[in-house]
Parts: sequence; C-alpha cells; structure tokens
Amino acid sequence: MRRTGGFPNLDDLAGGAGRLDILCRCVTSALACSHGIREDVRVHLVLNNQFTVQFDGANLKRLNPDERSTAALIRTALENREKAIGHMPAESTPGVSIRRMGFAETVNRLKTETTPIQLHETGTPIVDIDPPDDPLFVLSDHHSLTNDEIEQLGDIAEHQIRLGPMILHADHAITIAHNYLDTNGYNQY
Amino acid sequence: MRRTGGFPNLDDLAGGAGRLDILCRCVTSALACSHGIREDVRVHLVLNNQFTVQFDGANLKRLNPDERSTAALIRTALENREKAIGHMPAESTPGVSIRRMGFAETVNRLKTETTPIQLHETGTPIVDIDPPDDPLFVLSDHHSLTNDEIEQLGDIAEHQIRLGPMILHADHAITIAHNYLDTNGYNQY
Repeated sequence: MRRTGGFPNLDDLAGGAGRLDILCRCVTSALACSHGIREDVRVHLVLNNQFTVQFDGANLKRLNPDERSTAALIRTALENREKAIGHMPAESTPGVSIRRMGFAETVNRLKTETTPIQLHETGTPIVDIDPPDDPLFVLSDHHSLTNDEIEQLGDIAEHQIRLGPMILHADHAITIAHNYLDTNGYNQY
Repeated sequence: MRRTGGFPNLDDLAGGAGRLDILCRCVTSALACSHGIREDVRVHLVLNNQFTVQFDGANLKRLNPDERSTAALIRTALENREKAIGHMPAESTPGVSIRRMGFAETVNRLKTETTPIQLHETGTPIVDIDPPDDPLFVLSDHHSLTNDEIEQLGDIAEHQIRLGPMILHADHAITIAHNYLDTNGYNQY
C-alpha cells in the first residue's frame, strides 16, 4: 500500500494525511476480531514506496479498532524511520516496526515464506481455490497498483483471485479474505 | 445499535463519544463500495434506545469512508432530533433522517417490509440458507443485545444465522453479509 505526503494530522486522516484512514481500516480488518487480535497475521504497509511498516499480531499491543489510534501507531513508526538502517527493522511500539523498503523489496522479502496472491477483478473466485499455505494477500489503497508493481507482483504471484462480483474498499476485501480462511478451517484459534 | 452519552466530539470518537466509531464503521461497511454507494441499502442506528438514525442509500450524499465524516452526519442528525415529532422522521442531510423510535419500535416498523435476521454465534451458517427477500440484518455494537431486545427480535426473526466460526466486529460482519448477498446474485448493479 502506498501513501504520499508528510506526517499525518490525527484529526484529518482522510484529508491532509493522504488517505491514511484507508490504511488504518486495513490494519484493523486484518488484525482485529471481536475478542482480541489475530495472532498469526502480519500486515505490511508500503508507504511512499520507501518505507514499510509491519504490524505483527503475535506481539502487537495497543491496537484499538478506531482509525485514530491506529494512525497514532503508524505515525510513531514513521517518526522512528531514521533508526531503520539498511534493511533492518526498527521497532517503534510492541509489534510495530518500520523498514527502509519499498514495494518490490517487501514482496521479494516475503515471497520466500508466503504464497503471494494478487487480488484482481478478473481473477478466479476465491471460493474455487483451496486456501494456500501462508497466503500473502496484496492490495492497493484507493489508487490501483502501478504497472511496475503489477509486473513485480505478477512474476511471483501464484494466484490471481477475486472475492466477489463487487469492487470493494481494501479493508472490506481483507475482511472477506479472512472469512474465507476462517470458514475453510485455515485460521484456528 | 445503541450508544449512550451526549454529542460526539469528532476528535475522540472511540472515547468520549461512547464508541460512536463502531457505528460509523458499520455505516460505511453497509453503504460504501469502491465506486460509490449501495443504493438499495438502508441502515438504521438505534441510539440510546430512544432515537433511530436512518441512512438511505438511494438518496444519500456526503458519505465518505472515513469515520470522522460519517460521525459528522450522525451528529447533524442528532442535532435535529427535536424536529422528529411522533414517529415522523426529520431529514438532517440528504438521505439521513432521525426518528423518535427505540429498538422495538424500529424493528416492528421494518418487519412488514423486510425479513429480519438475527446474527447469532450458534445460528445456521449463512452459506446454508438462500438469501431471503429484503433481509434485515440486526446487529449490536460492542455490547450484546439486551435480553429484552433478544426477546423482541426473537418473536419476529425468521432466521438465526452465523457468518463464520469467528466472532467479529459488527462492521466486519456487515461486510461478510454483503459479500454473501453479492456472490449469491442478490445485490445487482
């Protein structure tokens, strides 16, 4: 995911913060269920194709479901970006860290331990495939992936899938992907 | 849905506003898709068991996907509550209106034109039923429905269903219910 611009103003997440609100909702959809955190989920937000903020469900603390508190975690991570040297992560709050990596570097780093899946409106319906091991769902924010990003992802994605007939906001897509994994016995708690 | 307390402070939706943030996310999940508004959807927020704010997708304007702008629409509706006389609605912004009705009155008003469905963790899996005509999904916020509300609903709900094995936030549940209707050819655009 990408966003441009400087540090977010927590009172104007959808405006001056470059639609940071979308990323906040995606983090919540990916990590929050009614009684806590999905501990086996990790979220990677690629910001400005320059930094990647990771939320690790196994170690995450202080995540609440509202946009504003999630934005504060992202802002704290960004404030720690100078501590991310080379490709080493810098932890900003428990379970949240920032790396000096763009989209291609992040996807390449993760492909060795996951099955990358590209969400695409002409892909195979998700209900027609079995859940792969350690799926990595790749989504864009309110802007589509660039041609470069599509090419980088196309080289490694094993599946192109679609979640339904509607084109949805990214956070809603994440919720549906989780429900598919939940009902197919993938997410066990 | 219920909330308590006074007028929301838009900078503190999850705190002083009595978890208004949850209702805002529910409105977005119910009404927003990537390219606009789901025109055949209506949302009813029961506030304090005293007033019900309705969002009508067919006439709705000014809905953005972030929590803060949705909260402003709810706040404007609440500011117009004295104009809601008897059971007549008062429109506050295009497509948003407020009625002087609690939970039982709202559900009773809607049951004549919808099929009420109670979401329940021990209900029938949603994938095992055909989508009913004009479903009315009834959800609670972060507090469960009261015993009174469950009783009132139980008298009229035709189905008790569950969406998956996980207990989810209300807004995520709405997204999954939509996906079920979308993929079963119910929502046509």
